Amino acid sequence: MQVKFVFHILSMVIFGTAITAILPLLADAVSGQHEWVVFAVSAAAMGFFGGACLLATREERSKGISLRTAFLLTGLSWLILPLFAALPFLDLGLSYADAIFEATSGITTTGSTVITGLDDLPPGILLWRSILQWIGGIGILVMAVVLLPFMRIGGAQLFRTESSETSDKVEPRWFVLMSNILLVYLFLTLFCGAVYWILGMSAFDAVCHAMATLSTGGYSTHDASFGYFDSGALQWAATLFMLSGSIPFYVYIKAVRTDARALFSDSQVRVLVLFLIIISVGMAAWLSRHGHIGFGEALTLTFFNITSVVSTTGFASVDYTLWGSGAIGAFLILTFVGGCSGSTSGGIKIYRFQVLTQVIGAHIKRLTSPHRVVPTHFNGRPLPDDAAISVLAFLTMFVATIALCTLALTFMDLDLITAYSASVTAITNVGPGLGPVVGPAGNFSSLPDSAKLLLAFAMILGRLEIFTILVIFDRGFWKN
Amino acid sequence: MQVKFVFHILSMVIFGTAITAILPLLADAVSGQHEWVVFAVSAAAMGFFGGACLLATREERSKGISLRTAFLLTGLSWLILPLFAALPFLDLGLSYADAIFEATSGITTTGSTVITGLDDLPPGILLWRSILQWIGGIGILVMAVVLLPFMRIGGAQLFRTESSETSDKVEPRWFVLMSNILLVYLFLTLFCGAVYWILGMSAFDAVCHAMATLSTGGYSTHDASFGYFDSGALQWAATLFMLSGSIPFYVYIKAVRTDARALFSDSQVRVLVLFLIIISVGMAAWLSRHGHIGFGEALTLTFFNITSVVSTTGFASVDYTLWGSGAIGAFLILTFVGGCSGSTSGGIKIYRFQVLTQVIGAHIKRLTSPHRVVPTHFNGRPLPDDAAISVLAFLTMFVATIALCTLALTFMDLDLITAYSASVTAITNVGPGLGPVVGPAGNFSSLPDSAKLLLAFAMILGRLEIFTILVIFDRGFWKN
Repeated sequence: MQVKFVFHILSMVIFGTAITAILPLLADAVSGQHEWVVFAVSAAAMGFFGGACLLATREERSKGISLRTAFLLTGLSWLILPLFAALPFLDLGLSYADAIFEATSGITTTGSTVITGLDDLPPGILLWRSILQWIGGIGILVMAVVLLPFMRIGGAQLFRTESSETSDKVEPRWFVLMSNILLVYLFLTLFCGAVYWILGMSAFDAVCHAMATLSTGGYSTHDASFGYFDSGALQWAATLFMLSGSIPFYVYIKAVRTDARALFSDSQVRVLVLFLIIISVGMAAWLSRHGHIGFGEALTLTFFNITSVVSTTGFASVDYTLWGSGAIGAFLILTFVGGCSGSTSGGIKIYRFQVLTQVIGAHIKRLTSPHRVVPTHFNGRPLPDDAAISVLAFLTMFVATIALCTLALTFMDLDLITAYSASVTAITNVGPGLGPVVGPAGNFSSLPDSAKLLLAFAMILGRLEIFTILVIFDRGFWKN
Repeated sequence: MQVKFVFHILSMVIFGTAITAILPLLADAVSGQHEWVVFAVSAAAMGFFGGACLLATREERSKGISLRTAFLLTGLSWLILPLFAALPFLDLGLSYADAIFEATSGITTTGSTVITGLDDLPPGILLWRSILQWIGGIGILVMAVVLLPFMRIGGAQLFRTESSETSDKVEPRWFVLMSNILLVYLFLTLFCGAVYWILGMSAFDAVCHAMATLSTGGYSTHDASFGYFDSGALQWAATLFMLSGSIPFYVYIKAVRTDARALFSDSQVRVLVLFLIIISVGMAAWLSRHGHIGFGEALTLTFFNITSVVSTTGFASVDYTLWGSGAIGAFLILTFVGGCSGSTSGGIKIYRFQVLTQVIGAHIKRLTSPHRVVPTHFNGRPLPDDAAISVLAFLTMFVATIALCTLALTFMDLDLITAYSASVTAITNVGPGLGPVVGPAGNFSSLPDSAKLLLAFAMILGRLEIFTILVIFDRGFWKN
């Protein structure tokens, strides 16, 4: 196990985060807010710790990362970074548990918040929240494109490239692909920010919301989230950019190299877009019949809010839980869905539903014809046996984790709807739950500290697709 | 496909049910209730239909049942019998949808009810409800011991005997085993009734409750269920007999042939008993601290109510949802658990958790050591590969079915807690849900007809472990 190497990378991450804290420092300083001191102190603390650790491990070099190192690095990064990223939130008078919840929600791009009165906060802290989500987005892209397929978590081996299948190391040439993907991420964020600005947001709001959109995070600079802007055009723009954040980022590279049709070369994209259209149009029809609003307006509302939940962003333009019981049920189920693999979104993800359909279909056929060989495929290629088990095991543990988290929260005296929907929204990294406490119009601040810490851990579990963390808790992992 | 043979057996089942309707007829006639006419008419209708169908198919003989015939027979039996068994309920002024709900809830041994004022009903209809559960119990035992292992549903192939593995037919010698098992079922029911009677129930209540106990059905003759009797001794007796109904019935045969220790030869029994003890003692400790009652009294309440839910019986001695948020969360999770395979209980069932633990453990180990062979086992024997997939596929579809059912119910304007807990309790065949409407103190009567019919179908889906029904809806099933 390359433990020292893990801390070398980890301290680089912390040092990098310290540098980004200069941006909110400047934002506060420029606008004459004395809170710039908070970021100076936080940046200094992170810079000192990260820098010292970096120096101590400066001899560490690695030509490739072993499997166990990849697990340890991924797990520790997401567990430790929030402890530092939480520092600036302490200045708001939050407890450390609250601050950790807010930072974890940011870095995992969940978007649940314990802060009320966003509209009155100094710009620095608002920018910090958006930056955390944007950095989290980078972490997820690295994880989703390189690490998860390499670690074969939850069926992600389907996205191993042919050359990687024979290798037991993460190859240095992955860094070329990653650099390209991060350039796309940066470009899309700038593009999104420009569009938001043109459509009427202030420059500051545009930057913050663009970072929270492409990372499918969902932090807003206003308590009313997108409802604050009251603009159909902005909602449609956000719908498109949330979708952009939830499709596989490698298809952008492909599209740049060939042509735009390559965006749909991955079957996940086709299924996701079709799914969003069917559900949004269906619910708009239902809403315009039952909710006394026009079909056009209903379409704007359903496309925006449904794409927000399915992409696991978590912006809200209205309190959709007021649409009635059916809408509550639908949004609860939609919270599970998630976007595509290789994107910044969370949840179960489209490809697992595609694999599940194939596996269950084949299973049903084999029940009546036990000796029949039923071919299964994904994205035009045969489905490997271990992918079926991986996907099914993931789904089972996903549900089991939600059940255990719900149970624990009810014993902290949360009512069942709050406990259940908070668990679901944390593990799927969506953001808003259901009910008056954690619903789209509510706030996580009134939960007990124990519940906040548990939910922060649940966000990390969900973000790392559960097994990355479970592996570290396996005794066998530490042997030899 | 032996379609005619299927109808031959089906008409035998309907004819047999007609004969059992003579018992409530006698009960009403003896106690001077004019409702005996209802049962005469119902018995005549079932007898005529079953008899005519029996005559028309009298030439049909089968030396063995093919796989597809087994699927068709199982599915049709559970879908058609409730349509006839519902007839006597029409006399109570119930709609046909209500009557079908009540009959299905009986035959699937779920125990949810739409009837209020049980205490004032004539004995015939109360006896009919208990008889339906008892008959349902027979059906489940046949299904669980012979058909499911043969059809390899949801991992049930683990319970195929060695000799059956090479056969593609249900062998006639199975009927010897089945007769023995039904004798045990009859004996345990009589024993249970005698104990209930000795402990203070009226003879009529004792008979009815004994039938509802061993079938893990849960219909009572009183609105207050076991709370009516207010007797600790009766609750402990019921706890033992509900447990008796939820352990594999073939271990009784083994115990009779060898000695009583054979009851624990199946690892499911050891896990179930240990689980019930740990959870009941734990919750009693919690309850006596938070609920201002003594530990002894708390033990009686927790053992009875937890065993009732885990065995999927559904009797209640108190409204445990008043114990607080934690208890509500715990009882919701317990609703999923279920008893052992080869018993009358429903739910996920213990052996699937045992298989799941093995499969997930092996999966985690293989994530860090991809080329390692991790041995898995169940009940001391190696776990076959297809059992792992079967169990995981079952769990996934179990959860997906609950999700779809919940969604549909919310669109029928049920609130989320009612919709979700009603779906869970129907598919697990437990009986009571959560919340004021369908909770242990509530009643399903206020739900819309569409919701009742959907829930009745959900009970059958759960009872037949989902795939038995899914197979029939597969187009390939009907192709030659």
